[in-house]
Amino acid sequence: MAKNTNIRISLPAVCFVWQIAMIILFGVFIRYDEESDTHWIEHRRKKNISTNLENDFYYRYPSFQDVHVMIFVGFGFLMTFLKRYSFGGVGFNFLIAAFGIQWALLMQGWFHHLDEHDWKIKIGVENLINADFCVASCLIAYGACLGKVSPVQLMVLTLFGVTLFAVEEYIILELLHAKDAGGSMVIHTFGAYYGLTISWVLYRPLLSQSKHLQGSVYHSDVFAMIGTLFLWMYWPSFNSAIADHGDGQHRAVINTYLALASSVLTTFAISSISQNNGKLDMVHIQNATLAGGVAMGTASEFMITPYGSLIVGFCSGIVSTFGYLFLTPFMEKTLKIQDTCGIHNLHAMPGVIGGIVGAITAASASESVYGQEGLINTFDFKDAVANRTVNIQGGYQAAALFVAIAFGLVGGALVGGILKLPIWGDPADVNCFDDDVYWEVIVNFSSE
Amino acid sequence: MAKNTNIRISLPAVCFVWQIAMIILFGVFIRYDEESDTHWIEHRRKKNISTNLENDFYYRYPSFQDVHVMIFVGFGFLMTFLKRYSFGGVGFNFLIAAFGIQWALLMQGWFHHLDEHDWKIKIGVENLINADFCVASCLIAYGACLGKVSPVQLMVLTLFGVTLFAVEEYIILELLHAKDAGGSMVIHTFGAYYGLTISWVLYRPLLSQSKHLQGSVYHSDVFAMIGTLFLWMYWPSFNSAIADHGDGQHRAVINTYLALASSVLTTFAISSISQNNGKLDMVHIQNATLAGGVAMGTASEFMITPYGSLIVGFCSGIVSTFGYLFLTPFMEKTLKIQDTCGIHNLHAMPGVIGGIVGAITAASASESVYGQEGLINTFDFKDAVANRTVNIQGGYQAAALFVAIAFGLVGGALVGGILKLPIWGDPADVNCFDDDVYWEVIVNFSSE
Amino acid sequence: MAKNTNIRISLPAVCFVWQIAMIILFGVFIRYDEESDTHWIEHRRKKNISTNLENDFYYRYPSFQDVHVMIFVGFGFLMTFLKRYSFGGVGFNFLIAAFGIQWALLMQGWFHHLDEHDWKIKIGVENLINADFCVASCLIAYGACLGKVSPVQLMVLTLFGVTLFAVEEYIILELLHAKDAGGSMVIHTFGAYYGLTISWVLYRPLLSQSKHLQGSVYHSDVFAMIGTLFLWMYWPSFNSAIADHGDGQHRAVINTYLALASSVLTTFAISSISQNNGKLDMVHIQNATLAGGVAMGTASEFMITPYGSLIVGFCSGIVSTFGYLFLTPFMEKTLKIQDTCGIHNLHAMPGVIGGIVGAITAASASESVYGQEGLINTFDFKDAVANRTVNIQGGYQAAALFVAIAFGLVGGALVGGILKLPIWGDPADVNCFDDDVYWEVIVNFSSE
Repeated sequence: MAKNTNIRISLPAVCFVWQIAMIILFGVFIRYDEESDTHWIEHRRKKNISTNLENDFYYRYPSFQDVHVMIFVGFGFLMTFLKRYSFGGVGFNFLIAAFGIQWALLMQGWFHHLDEHDWKIKIGVENLINADFCVASCLIAYGACLGKVSPVQLMVLTLFGVTLFAVEEYIILELLHAKDAGGSMVIHTFGAYYGLTISWVLYRPLLSQSKHLQGSVYHSDVFAMIGTLFLWMYWPSFNSAIADHGDGQHRAVINTYLALASSVLTTFAISSISQNNGKLDMVHIQNATLAGGVAMGTASEFMITPYGSLIVGFCSGIVSTFGYLFLTPFMEKTLKIQDTCGIHNLHAMPGVIGGIVGAITAASASESVYGQEGLINTFDFKDAVANRTVNIQGGYQAAALFVAIAFGLVGGALVGGILKLPIWGDPADVNCFDDDVYWEVIVNFSSE
Repeated sequence: MAKNTNIRISLPAVCFVWQIAMIILFGVFIRYDEESDTHWIEHRRKKNISTNLENDFYYRYPSFQDVHVMIFVGFGFLMTFLKRYSFGGVGFNFLIAAFGIQWALLMQGWFHHLDEHDWKIKIGVENLINADFCVASCLIAYGACLGKVSPVQLMVLTLFGVTLFAVEEYIILELLHAKDAGGSMVIHTFGAYYGLTISWVLYRPLLSQSKHLQGSVYHSDVFAMIGTLFLWMYWPSFNSAIADHGDGQHRAVINTYLALASSVLTTFAISSISQNNGKLDMVHIQNATLAGGVAMGTASEFMITPYGSLIVGFCSGIVSTFGYLFLTPFMEKTLKIQDTCGIHNLHAMPGVIGGIVGAITAASASESVYGQEGLINTFDFKDAVANRTVNIQGGYQAAALFVAIAFGLVGGALVGGILKLPIWGDPADVNCFDDDVYWEVIVNFSSE
Repeated sequence: MAKNTNIRISLPAVCFVWQIAMIILFGVFIRYDEESDTHWIEHRRKKNISTNLENDFYYRYPSFQDVHVMIFVGFGFLMTFLKRYSFGGVGFNFLIAAFGIQWALLMQGWFHHLDEHDWKIKIGVENLINADFCVASCLIAYGACLGKVSPVQLMVLTLFGVTLFAVEEYIILELLHAKDAGGSMVIHTFGAYYGLTISWVLYRPLLSQSKHLQGSVYHSDVFAMIGTLFLWMYWPSFNSAIADHGDGQHRAVINTYLALASSVLTTFAISSISQNNGKLDMVHIQNATLAGGVAMGTASEFMITPYGSLIVGFCSGIVSTFGYLFLTPFMEKTLKIQDTCGIHNLHAMPGVIGGIVGAITAASASESVYGQEGLINTFDFKDAVANRTVNIQGGYQAAALFVAIAFGLVGGALVGGILKLPIWGDPADVNCFDDDVYWEVIVNFSSE
């Protein structure tokens, strides 16, 4: 069945109209906050702030840039591993992230930062980080659909993904008052189930027609390692970027650094033991080594202890690699879920692990370990939740995990239904995983 | 016509002699400033500085490293897109940047930082950033000449480019007292016209003889995306690196982040609409997505508002992509300007847009928006220019743009004339865009 | 002679057992320090620390992330240059670094940070940097063995390498009270001689059987430039990461920046002069350009002056490139040392230069240049060494260099002996430099 993949009208239309909408909405709603406005000098005097360094910019800017690299180079290059879909991997990632961060500033702003006096959203560096975080969930979802959808579909996926994210995040962080600094639940679990459900709705029974393109070549695997390593190296910044100033950011870095190191070793171990002669599989190394970072997303701020972090990484590396070995083929055959990048193994399962670890760690927190003030600071037991106990906090953490899963499943089903409409220019089964559909690829591949 | 491309004497001679000259001149002129000298502790006590954090190092070092990555990986990998000139793209970029930053420390030091008491230049982290900035203009100029010049010519281009830059920068920033934190005018406009004029002087009527090499292969395009993305991600650091402490740096980051996001969408839109079936062109994605960063260089510190930044990115993405579609072929055929990387589209036009935007934004600044102190701080209306109005400032900003263009055109014509001498070992028309001329390329390309 | 390269038991066993050992030892010994513990807020009050910014995290985190990139992307991609060993280069680098940083936290903790009251090691961001530093020495050693050893051997090399490093570092920094902020001696000299001696013990007389794989292809050389550039750009962070707050970090950055720039020019010069037609060799550009950073490791904190830094870079670039031209072939033929990456030229010789430069610079320090307080701060002439003169310090610096060399030679001989046992699954001579031995490489290379 020939499909019409001509996107000459639809893609420019979507880009132009949505970008103009962003300009209008930003004009109505978005302003600089007091730390990025020229009135900062007066604000400093009024609040008796002694130095420019107390501007939140200097606490968070290095982490922000690291997160920014993860979003564009990390996710982008991780998806270059296919032999003929590297342009689509890194290029469409670029497109939807650039759109998503704008829409996220609005959506997250409306839910979290709307000034009640003038109905404006005041933005600063923390908003930029949160926008990057929000978009990460859509990039995860893209991983399940890689090579099978059109850029127009991806824009739609991102529009709704960011919207769902903002609501889900509001419920989890504000209503449930759950903690999730690195987004095991909010970002990874939601994003993964959102993408997997979309992929399930868009199931292609004849995808095997493009099987010859659904693999890597030698150098595309090396390109993907660029993505892997920048994700791996900067994950401590991801999990600490919006953590509390001082010990919060510091501890989140240590915990994440250790969990990641640990999951590298178990990934290599399982990958080797599963093959003849113990040969390693690049797919495992590119992906499962990152599971420790995902699984440390919720508890990164907590006093999980250094060896606790190692254990989390240990387990998630194993689970993730087993996922690539057994679950991905099972899901494709039995559940009809085609998951190109294996996001179920890298984001869904480690994300759920992270949510559970967070709930348990929160429930077992104590004043003897955290100190009285430390406990209050870490869990923000103030104002409306001043009397919450750690056990109850653990329960809310668990509830948050279910909210993330539910939003992913229901949202993915709805958006999948929209994306199934035959108007989006998606490729035929025989043309999946082929850059030639959406890119000018002049040169003959075989002559390179 | 066979040309002598043997650079076995000339290249080592230039490298050695100029490096020795650098050592001698550094010995005579360059010293540590008070923040990088061991007397810092005494300086702190004298100035009553309460913490080491007030050392400018901690305000600017993260931005410096990001800028450094843009110069060497960003510009370097952006120029690896040609199928057989990746060594020359990233390698010669490395060479001339490493020389240029040394020469820039001297030239900029003489013009801006010469201590009147001991006639020494005192350097710190801000000087390192400015040296990187200065060299960026020469790397832009290299983009127009990529594949058509010898490394010796590039060293000459850099020697004179840095010299011209320092004078031009002195006129614009000190004499005209124009603001240009991210260098739309000083760096991009100057660098682009400098390179384009050189390329015009060095026009090769028979360049089509190497047409078969003037394109990319699949993986060289992926390499170039590394350059694109690191430039794109770190551009907020570029435009904020030497901005004012506090709200200045903070605001420059937000403005640049938004302008860049916006130009991605319009680039994809124009690229898609211009081709059959809406197929995207990697050349556009690699380059025009960056136009928003260039165009936000002058106004990044100003209160241009978030939606203003989006509008700037919107327009510059469109203009830049149209440039690649129509202007580059027109310039090559009609104006006899061969612009390998399309720097006219990425740096010249967005740079001019940036200068104009800066002038308009400055002229329309007001105390009601900036606050009284904020207005003075942002435009440094102190000392000699204490009584300057924003309208007059706008006029000086516009004048600065003409200075940048004039320096580019006149300087490029002069240096182009020097580079036209038949002594520099440049390649024959048939050997352009071929690494084999200047590099040991052992392996047969076709067997890879 | 066929060798058994089946590592299906040994590699998983080593990974699992050692990772479990790490978890147990971390459980017994490792805790958060006072700046990463939730009691930080009480600590602040007790010590009267006015702001969260005084948490060491904010002084060192940006440098830490840069060092982290050097370890995983820098070293990793530098080792992708071989045509068929890119997976092994970047992949095994990833594995052993992830193990080594854990073991280093323990070993360095026992020697430097063991709390005498509770026998715990309290870790913070500086420990993470030091762990990365420690592992760098093992990655350097890997460079000599690249392509000739199994991942199990590399794990053993790392286990003993980290152990030896911790002892050597303790002797040099604590007992001799030598200064070595960027590790010219402690990291580079030790690591290089450790690896070279191992390579000498493991000498393969018939290595020429895999000569056809011991070279690069066009794109593998471009991949290696990613490693080169990230090492080069972030080296200022490497040499300043654990330097003194304030002027110490600031000065280390300036010195390293300049030394690196200088060695680029002399590397290009020597590379060009050594070949017909002055053609450049990518091996030189990829490696010898970094020599300035290695050679500035010890003296980076000192008042070596900017032109002094240029001279150090000038000389080390020359020495390193000559090494690649003449010493590496000589060592292979005459000394029976097969050094795949030429670490003798990039780390051993520049490391020794760095140690000598450090000793001379220290011995010639004076109060007139450093200021009274500056001299004490820079060399930590306090407590037990309060009365040490700069001449004596110079002598101790020289002694430290010999300690580093001795540890490398003796340690390498011992570990080489262990690695020579026929139980580690190393490849046959004919299968060296081939990813196919330890990786699933499905695709036919020639068809890419």
